Amino acid sequence: MSSFKPIQFKENKLILLDQRLLPSEEVFLEFDTIEGIHGAIKDMVVRGAPCIGFTAVFGMAVWIKSHPDFTLEQITKAGNYLNSARPTAVNLGYEIQQVIGHIRDKELLGNEAFEFVVQLGNEKIAQSERDNRQMALTAEEELDKLGINNFQILTHCNTGFLACGSVGTALGVVQNLHEKGKLKNCWVDETRPYLQGSRLTAYELTKLKAPHKIVVEGAASFLMKNKMVDAIFTGADRIAANGDTANKVGTSNLAILARHYGIPFFIVAPSSTFDLSIKSGDQIDIELRPDSEILKYKNYQIAPKNSEAFNPSFDITDGELITGIINEKGMAKGNYLETLPTIL
Amino acid sequence: MSSFKPIQFKENKLILLDQRLLPSEEVFLEFDTIEGIHGAIKDMVVRGAPCIGFTAVFGMAVWIKSHPDFTLEQITKAGNYLNSARPTAVNLGYEIQQVIGHIRDKELLGNEAFEFVVQLGNEKIAQSERDNRQMALTAEEELDKLGINNFQILTHCNTGFLACGSVGTALGVVQNLHEKGKLKNCWVDETRPYLQGSRLTAYELTKLKAPHKIVVEGAASFLMKNKMVDAIFTGADRIAANGDTANKVGTSNLAILARHYGIPFFIVAPSSTFDLSIKSGDQIDIELRPDSEILKYKNYQIAPKNSEAFNPSFDITDGELITGIINEKGMAKGNYLETLPTIL
Repeated sequence: MSSFKPIQFKENKLILLDQRLLPSEEVFLEFDTIEGIHGAIKDMVVRGAPCIGFTAVFGMAVWIKSHPDFTLEQITKAGNYLNSARPTAVNLGYEIQQVIGHIRDKELLGNEAFEFVVQLGNEKIAQSERDNRQMALTAEEELDKLGINNFQILTHCNTGFLACGSVGTALGVVQNLHEKGKLKNCWVDETRPYLQGSRLTAYELTKLKAPHKIVVEGAASFLMKNKMVDAIFTGADRIAANGDTANKVGTSNLAILARHYGIPFFIVAPSSTFDLSIKSGDQIDIELRPDSEILKYKNYQIAPKNSEAFNPSFDITDGELITGIINEKGMAKGNYLETLPTIL
Repeated sequence: MSSFKPIQFKENKLILLDQRLLPSEEVFLEFDTIEGIHGAIKDMVVRGAPCIGFTAVFGMAVWIKSHPDFTLEQITKAGNYLNSARPTAVNLGYEIQQVIGHIRDKELLGNEAFEFVVQLGNEKIAQSERDNRQMALTAEEELDKLGINNFQILTHCNTGFLACGSVGTALGVVQNLHEKGKLKNCWVDETRPYLQGSRLTAYELTKLKAPHKIVVEGAASFLMKNKMVDAIFTGADRIAANGDTANKVGTSNLAILARHYGIPFFIVAPSSTFDLSIKSGDQIDIELRPDSEILKYKNYQIAPKNSEAFNPSFDITDGELITGIINEKGMAKGNYLETLPTIL
């Protein structure tokens, strides 16, 4: 596993695992032009906010390689072009601006600029791995208080190395438990409609050789009632000042079921996910996705042609239902208005 | 719609809507041999406990038609053969025994026996429709107390005319509201893994021209939090003395979410579903279904080849989470140990 990386920069080329073909095929694609990398982001060869960010940095590197005598105007234009691949991916633009800012401030050009940006990308991946490892240790410490040796963890959507580059957030917790011999089983919510769980998280767990079973989301209450879940870990898309958390639709169902059954429910997410300028989840808009994700499987029509669907992509989990929110600096609990600022 | 029937006996033949092809194709198949009807039950041309029961009665009728001078031994053998089509379907055997009992007690033979059994089958369908209409009226009366004119109902799995022959149980409630102009929208849980909601319930609602939208089960909390659900209705496979109810996996999730959000949750099921000899849900065994229902869609592999699934087909909803249990005689509420016997 340690040599299996979904994103790598090697011999002046970006090598990406083509995530569109998972889990049935493992194909690595090589890119050495900004146009190719623009296409890889746009066509979802690569996905997950952290990996999109890393890809953007390497995208700027290959552009610099082929334009060693660039001007600030030219690199800004190249950055705008790369950012247009997925304009709503917030950290895509953020990472591109970071690259341009460093180049400008340090007045770098040519191969020096190229080497610097490649190193920046690699350092970001390494930092993300350190941060996620730290979050996993915080979670492990918390779990150890439950007095169990061998944990049954339930998770939702995809938060593993495919999204994060090396070690995941919520799935990093599962990976760490597995590496320490403390994982009895990971229940993988299949995560309808896009099936990130059964397609991607299950794939990651097979690569990690970690024990896991895929379940439909309707089975969550059955599992909890039958004491087959010791704790639940999910990632987050956005966390408000009061702990209200936007994440893949179905997350708040799990938090409510967990409260009913007295099972701890944790969010694991890097600081970049926290937005304390938002007071509560009410201020977070929920993206509605196309009906077809529910009505069809690939090109196969499941539902009647005249039926419509309603497809909110995220939901808001009330902060008060969350046992703890973990980031790279520690864990917040209780009144999040007071405790979240202590880990930021 | 009134002329659209998934099961009919006409001109000495049983006519069944082939439910395996829904919702994409509407094909009616005709049967005039017990072997053909055995196959229709076994291969799930027909499904849903009530419809399987009606089919069994008509299956005995066509056998009698071709064996007018039968002995009691012969008809018993024919009944055993028909019952072997789906040995775990409790009411299949029950209906066959009923037919044989009547034939024996009334000493019927030949065409007289045939006519009697056909009439018995038709009467059972008519009685089921009367019962389900009555349950729908009880539910409507209860809903009217909420002081809303136009209801948003959420339902799970399939409980409509495809399973019940004419009017459904939980979906009968929805149908009745629609006929009275009181249905704003029916949220159809797609009901993984077998997708009874998006394939069958949505099909029924299109035939009824009733407003509906299909949702993934993960969206239930989102809908309830955003006040888009006024009440939840589901059917039941088995109801214990304390109100604990076995139904399609995911039902108990809905009951817990409904309690959290203060939304009423009702079970609608005929008396035949009640088993007061069972004290609580703990005594009900849950069927585990094949992994492949989760890991594949039709023949298409969704999950990694090395991943396994866990596929409980039902769950138990605690009686105390159920606002009311409705059958053809009325509604029980509160302490079900005391109230259920009053509607039986």
